[in-house]
Amino acid sequence: MAKDKQVEQITDMEVDFAQWYTDVVKKAELIEYSGVKGFYVVRPYAYAIWENIQKIMDGMFKDLGHENVSMPILIPESLLQKEKDHVEGFAPEVAWVTHGGSEELTERLCIRPTSETLFCDHYSRIVRSWRDLPKLYNQWCSVLRWEKTTRPFLRHREFLWQEGHTVHATAEEAKAETLQMLEVYADTCEKWLAMPVIRGRKTEKEKFAGALDTYSIECMMHDTRALQAGTSHYFGDGFARAFDISFTDKDNTIQYCHQTSWGVSTRLIGGIIMSHGDNSGLILPPKVAPIQVAIVPIASHKPGVLEGAQALFARLQQAGIRVKLDTSDQSPGWKFAEYEMKGVPLRLEMGPRDLEQNQCVLVRRDNGEKMFISQDELESQVEAALEAVHQGLYEKAKKHLDDHSFTAQTAAEVKALVDDKGGFVKAMWCGDRACEEEIKDTYGITSRNIPFDQEKVGETCLSCGKPADIMVIWGISY
Amino acid sequence: MAKDKQVEQITDMEVDFAQWYTDVVKKAELIEYSGVKGFYVVRPYAYAIWENIQKIMDGMFKDLGHENVSMPILIPESLLQKEKDHVEGFAPEVAWVTHGGSEELTERLCIRPTSETLFCDHYSRIVRSWRDLPKLYNQWCSVLRWEKTTRPFLRHREFLWQEGHTVHATAEEAKAETLQMLEVYADTCEKWLAMPVIRGRKTEKEKFAGALDTYSIECMMHDTRALQAGTSHYFGDGFARAFDISFTDKDNTIQYCHQTSWGVSTRLIGGIIMSHGDNSGLILPPKVAPIQVAIVPIASHKPGVLEGAQALFARLQQAGIRVKLDTSDQSPGWKFAEYEMKGVPLRLEMGPRDLEQNQCVLVRRDNGEKMFISQDELESQVEAALEAVHQGLYEKAKKHLDDHSFTAQTAAEVKALVDDKGGFVKAMWCGDRACEEEIKDTYGITSRNIPFDQEKVGETCLSCGKPADIMVIWGISY
Repeated sequence: MAKDKQVEQITDMEVDFAQWYTDVVKKAELIEYSGVKGFYVVRPYAYAIWENIQKIMDGMFKDLGHENVSMPILIPESLLQKEKDHVEGFAPEVAWVTHGGSEELTERLCIRPTSETLFCDHYSRIVRSWRDLPKLYNQWCSVLRWEKTTRPFLRHREFLWQEGHTVHATAEEAKAETLQMLEVYADTCEKWLAMPVIRGRKTEKEKFAGALDTYSIECMMHDTRALQAGTSHYFGDGFARAFDISFTDKDNTIQYCHQTSWGVSTRLIGGIIMSHGDNSGLILPPKVAPIQVAIVPIASHKPGVLEGAQALFARLQQAGIRVKLDTSDQSPGWKFAEYEMKGVPLRLEMGPRDLEQNQCVLVRRDNGEKMFISQDELESQVEAALEAVHQGLYEKAKKHLDDHSFTAQTAAEVKALVDDKGGFVKAMWCGDRACEEEIKDTYGITSRNIPFDQEKVGETCLSCGKPADIMVIWGISY
Repeated sequence: MAKDKQVEQITDMEVDFAQWYTDVVKKAELIEYSGVKGFYVVRPYAYAIWENIQKIMDGMFKDLGHENVSMPILIPESLLQKEKDHVEGFAPEVAWVTHGGSEELTERLCIRPTSETLFCDHYSRIVRSWRDLPKLYNQWCSVLRWEKTTRPFLRHREFLWQEGHTVHATAEEAKAETLQMLEVYADTCEKWLAMPVIRGRKTEKEKFAGALDTYSIECMMHDTRALQAGTSHYFGDGFARAFDISFTDKDNTIQYCHQTSWGVSTRLIGGIIMSHGDNSGLILPPKVAPIQVAIVPIASHKPGVLEGAQALFARLQQAGIRVKLDTSDQSPGWKFAEYEMKGVPLRLEMGPRDLEQNQCVLVRRDNGEKMFISQDELESQVEAALEAVHQGLYEKAKKHLDDHSFTAQTAAEVKALVDDKGGFVKAMWCGDRACEEEIKDTYGITSRNIPFDQEKVGETCLSCGKPADIMVIWGISY
C-alpha cells in the first residue's frame, strides 16, 4: 500500500523520460530548487555520492603525482581576454561582478566559468626553470556558466567539478598527460560507476575553446541519448604564449611550456541516474552508494529480532560496508519502497523465522533477486552480492549500448536510425567541418567523438559522399 | 652556506613580526598573490594542510550525525534582506553580480559572505514535520567579504571554510549543539593543531549579526595578539520567524524551529604559522603536516646509502607515516634548510656510518634535538618522536599563553599591561556595552570573550567602576 503510494509519485520512464528523471531527482532527495533559476541545492544524499566519487578520483590523481590547489573565484576581464579563442567561447556565458561592498569596481570581474586563465596567470608567476616542471595541479570547486536552459545535474548555472591544469616542459609529456587523464576518467566510469564509455577525440567544431585537441568519454543513457561524461584537453603552447609561461631549460634556452586541462563534474550523477535507474527510482552503483545495504527488520516487536538486526548491522559496519539499520516506526513495505527509490544496492531483511534459522534475506535492487544467506557467511555474501550488483549494472548498460549502436552510410540513414531506434550511429566522415555542420543544422544530430577504436564502416563521407577515413559516432546528446 | 642563504630571506620575527609572517607564507610556498587584491592562491603545500584539517573535522562532524551539502553561491538581494540584523552586518561587504552573460539581471545577486539565508530558504522548503528534525548540515566552500585590508590566511576577500547550519525542534537542543560544536573546534585546535584555546562567549557587541549568542575559541599568537580561531552561534527562532521555518510537532501544533551555525576557516593555517613558527620558518603540528618526516641521505653516492634510505622510506610509508625521501641533487645543507622552512616535524638523516651501525639520525624541528635511533625500532621511534613534537609544541604554546596572561582592575591598567608585556588581560566588566565601547575607542583594546572558566579577579568594572561580576579577556586581535 505504502509502496504503491511512493512509486505513484514518479512518472514511468517509458511514458515521459524527462519527467521520470525530474521525479527521481526530487523524490530520492538528490536536488532541491533554490531561489535563483539554474542554481540548485545538492542535498546530502547526492552530495554523499559526489564525496564518494571525489575520494576515488582524488586518490587516483594523487597516485599519479597531482596536487590540489585553490585558485581565486574571480577573473579580471582583462585576464579572461588574454587567449582569443578562450574568451570567445566563455565570455557570453559568464556572470559579472561590478560592485564590491558599496564601491563600483574599476574593472569588471567574472565568476570563473573554468580556470585556465587563473592557472596560467599563476604558472607565469611561479615557473622559472626546468626544475619547476611539471606542475600537476587539480582543483575541486564550483564554476558558473549562465546557461539559458538548465536541468538538475546535467546543466546547472553553477556546478561542482574538478579541473586539472598541468604544465610541462615538452609537448610529448603534455600529450601523454591528456590521454592518461582521459583513461582515469574512463576507469572511473567503468570500474566504479558501472557506466561503459566510448573513448575518443572531439572534432574541431566540438573541441574546447582554446584547445588544440579535446578528448572525451561518451556514455549512452537509458533513453539512448549521449552524455559527455568527461573531457581532457591538450593546449600545446598557445596559452603559454598568451600568458608568457616560459622556463629556462637544461641547455639554458628559454622555452614555452605545454599545457593540459581536464574535468568531470556532478553531471556524472546525472549519468548514474539515467544509466541505471528504473521505474521504482534510483539504482546506485555499489562502489559509490552512500548506503550499500539497508537493513529492514521484519516484525521487529518479536523477541530477538531487533537485537539480531543490530548484530548484523555491527558486523557489516565492522567489515567496512556502508550500512544503515532502519528501526523507525514506518512499515516494512514503506521502507522497501524508500530504499528502492533511493537506489540502495542491497536490502537485508531479518525477521523471526530468519532469526530461528540463523539466516537473513538479501534482495538485489538491480534485478530484485532474493537470496537466503546464512548469517555465518554474512560479510562474504554481502560483499559478493555488492560485486554482483556492480557487474549486473555494467553488463546491462553495456548491452544497452551495444543494442543501440548502429552503422550507416549517409546522413539520411543516420537520421532514420536515430529517429527509429535512437542510439549511436557510426558513419564515415571526410573531416570537413562544413559536412559536420550541415548534419547538425539539417538533422539536429551532432558528432559525439572520433573513437580511438576506429572501424572502417564505409568508404565515403556521410554528408558530401567524398572518400572518407574517419569514423565518427553520431547521436543526440544531453 | 646554502642554509644561511635560505634563512636570510626571512626577516627575524623579533625585528618585524608582520614581515616575518609574510616572508614565511611566501617562502614556504603556502600562498601566492593573484591579479585581484585580497584574493590569494592557496598553493599545494598549504592546501594539503587544509585537506588534513578537513579530514579530521569532517570525520568529527559526521560522527556527530552531520551531513554535507552544497548550497548555491549566489544570494538574491531580497533574500539577504530578510533578517534585519544579518543584512546590516553583511550588506556593506558583499560582492554584487549584476550581469549574467550579456543580460542585466532584474535583481542583484551577491556572492555568499556566509550562507545563513540560503540554508534558511532551503529549510523553509524541506522542513514540515517533527520527523524532519533535526537537520544537521555542513558545507565546505569559499565565501567572499569585500574587506578593505587583507592578509594571507588571516583576512582574505575570498576564503575557504566550513559552515555548519542546523535546525532543531527545541531551543535546548539548539543550544546544546552550539556548545558541542565549539568543543569540537577546541578539540581540533588543542589535540590536532597543538594550539591551546580559551573557550568563551562573545559580548553583545562582538557577536555575529543575527545571533542571540556567539561563542568563540581564542588563541594567542607568538606576538601575543589574539586570533579568533572558530565561532559557534545560537540563533533562537529569529531566522525561523523571518524565513518561516516551522513544523508540525507531535501534538499537532505548529512551531518555529531553533537554529545554529558554526564555522572555522583557513585562518587556522595563519594560527598554526603564528603559534609555532620560528626564525627558520614554519613549524607544523605533526598531525596535519603534509610531510611528517623528510629523509635526507648523506653522501648518497657512497655504496648502500640510497638503497638504505629507500628501505627506511618504504617502511615508514608502510606504517602510514607521511614521509618524503629527497634524492634530488641539492646539497644536504640546502635540504635541511628547505625542510626547516617548510616546518617538517622530523628530519631523518642517513649516511654511510649510520648504515654501518644500523642506525639513523632523527632531528626534531621544534627544538633541534638530535636522536640516534636503531633502525630496528624505526617505526616506533618515529611515531614517538612525532607525538613528542606535538606535545612539545602544545606545551610551549601553553606556557606562552600562561606567561602572557595577566589580571587588571582598571582599563588604564589593562592598557599599560598590553603596551608593556602584550597578551591577554583578565578584568571584570559590568556588562554595559558603553563601557566596552569606551575601552575600544580610548585604547584600541577589545573584549576577546567571556571565558567559561570564570575567575573573580576583582569587584568592579574596569571602565565605570560599578560592581561587576563578568570576567572578560581583553586584548588586541587579528
